[in-house]
Amino acid sequence: TIESLEASAPPNANETSPSTTSAPKFLRDAWIRPNASGEGSSCVLANGRIFEKAGVNVSIVQGMLSPGAQAQMRADHSSLPINRTEPLPYFATGLSIVIHPRNPHVPTVHLNYRYFEIADKDDPTKPVAWWFGGGSDLTPSYLVEEDAKHFHKTLKDAADRHHPNYWPKFKPWCDKYFYIPHRSEARGIGGFFFDDLTSSSEVHGDKQPSKEEIFEFIKDISGAFLPSYVPIVVRNRDKGWTEQQRRWQLIRRGRYVEFNLLYDRGTKFGLNIPGARVESILMSLPETARWEYCTELGQEQGTEEAKLLEVLKTPKDWA
Amino acid sequence: TIESLEASAPPNANETSPSTTSAPKFLRDAWIRPNASGEGSSCVLANGRIFEKAGVNVSIVQGMLSPGAQAQMRADHSSLPINRTEPLPYFATGLSIVIHPRNPHVPTVHLNYRYFEIADKDDPTKPVAWWFGGGSDLTPSYLVEEDAKHFHKTLKDAADRHHPNYWPKFKPWCDKYFYIPHRSEARGIGGFFFDDLTSSSEVHGDKQPSKEEIFEFIKDISGAFLPSYVPIVVRNRDKGWTEQQRRWQLIRRGRYVEFNLLYDRGTKFGLNIPGARVESILMSLPETARWEYCTELGQEQGTEEAKLLEVLKTPKDWA
Repeated sequence: TIESLEASAPPNANETSPSTTSAPKFLRDAWIRPNASGEGSSCVLANGRIFEKAGVNVSIVQGMLSPGAQAQMRADHSSLPINRTEPLPYFATGLSIVIHPRNPHVPTVHLNYRYFEIADKDDPTKPVAWWFGGGSDLTPSYLVEEDAKHFHKTLKDAADRHHPNYWPKFKPWCDKYFYIPHRSEARGIGGFFFDDLTSSSEVHGDKQPSKEEIFEFIKDISGAFLPSYVPIVVRNRDKGWTEQQRRWQLIRRGRYVEFNLLYDRGTKFGLNIPGARVESILMSLPETARWEYCTELGQEQGTEEAKLLEVLKTPKDWA
Repeated sequence: TIESLEASAPPNANETSPSTTSAPKFLRDAWIRPNASGEGSSCVLANGRIFEKAGVNVSIVQGMLSPGAQAQMRADHSSLPINRTEPLPYFATGLSIVIHPRNPHVPTVHLNYRYFEIADKDDPTKPVAWWFGGGSDLTPSYLVEEDAKHFHKTLKDAADRHHPNYWPKFKPWCDKYFYIPHRSEARGIGGFFFDDLTSSSEVHGDKQPSKEEIFEFIKDISGAFLPSYVPIVVRNRDKGWTEQQRRWQLIRRGRYVEFNLLYDRGTKFGLNIPGARVESILMSLPETARWEYCTELGQEQGTEEAKLLEVLKTPKDWA
């Protein structure tokens, strides 16, 4: 079922490119893992006029999950009956989108939705646990409050259509997840994030939704991606920028790299899978990033750079 | 004792800059940790003509080490009597140098030497275990065999003066340590690396050297740094380069970032220390790095880029 995301999402996500980019170089490729253990496809735009690097990645993977990997793949180990002593068959599928625009005034955006299933060790067709996870978050180099509100509000509206508890719980979860502890700042201005979402999840209270109902929610919230982001691109894409603004953007991308390589659970999980498709996993990294020792950018109060840092240090409710 | 490295090494390392750089921006700063728990100094060159980013970092840190951190800070847990149930006082000092030249034909170099001491829990002046670790390794974007031989030979000669087992054991250790498993390639062409070096280390066989003798070795091998590297800078610094060569260099720097953030034990250890000096720890990252999805550079057999990849995939004995 969730595989149908592959059919719908990538073309939609690409719609933003043709109208705004003159001659993008779009690499599309499909890959297959040995022994029918998985497949996927990646579409990555390079050198676009608007989008410096943008990728859509779909993967479907199955195999045996070691007890260690079982523990690592889930954020919340309380809800699901996982075998800790022997490998179990698993099935995982996910959709990821990461867009790094060229213009420092257009924010980076990230979306990931995924489905995991763990099966009976003697009968791989019999699921013993399943859950959805994912979310979508915005990473501006310069804060535009109207954009922050629009992004959050669009996601909130989609979430509220499915469960009143989703937004109140999953908005702060996003702030907590996309946090860079050694910098004491968030990667971006957040959005929506959850993991281990299954019928019996605490967030649902007494009325447990079916898997189909949760999948309807996933389709709806991922469908909110384009409405949440495209207007922000359109509003900011024609703004000019200075060399200093570009420098700041690349420094912020350095922080993006720090988060993804040091803390992101999906990246670590992916790279640890034998035979992992490394290029697809690291597609999320920006084309360029920059590290300055003790940069002065963002240090001076009242600047636009300092204004961003403020909301990264203290997440706000935008919706 | 080893603190004297601070007095000698940084000025030496800087000698390479004034003669070759027109107007480098050299940031020097000293830092002190709260409660007399540590201090250090960093000198970082930015925007040099030869050196895009180069840093020397000295730190002296002390505090209580949690059992978890005790386990994480050492590569080889077999030799030292470490308390696994309660925090122990520790003292650590280290010297790091990382130089990222601008010219793709001049290799990046890294040096780190460090000393750890763990003390009795009731008497912090009484060491219960101590060891030295560190090494030095070269990361070219383009392989020059003469340079590789010179770098390895200079380190080998210094090591051989102190113990015949050092080079045979610590050269392959370097290849193993600076390895990027998800890329199936080494970070660079290696050099020399060891950890947990103490009197009773297996490498010493029957004749155990004193702490003073090992410290003489550390001074000698760190003194080999300039002779091992400066001639390579001089030989290559006037070579011209193409845009493609620069692109390849930045892609290689992306791999450098991947190693440092995903696998380097020192980086992880440093970032986990409460109150860590993040800017000093991440000084090792290049000014700029680049990630291309499925880059074609290095893919075509017979190119200079492919020639480098070959030795990264199969480390060679150069000395």
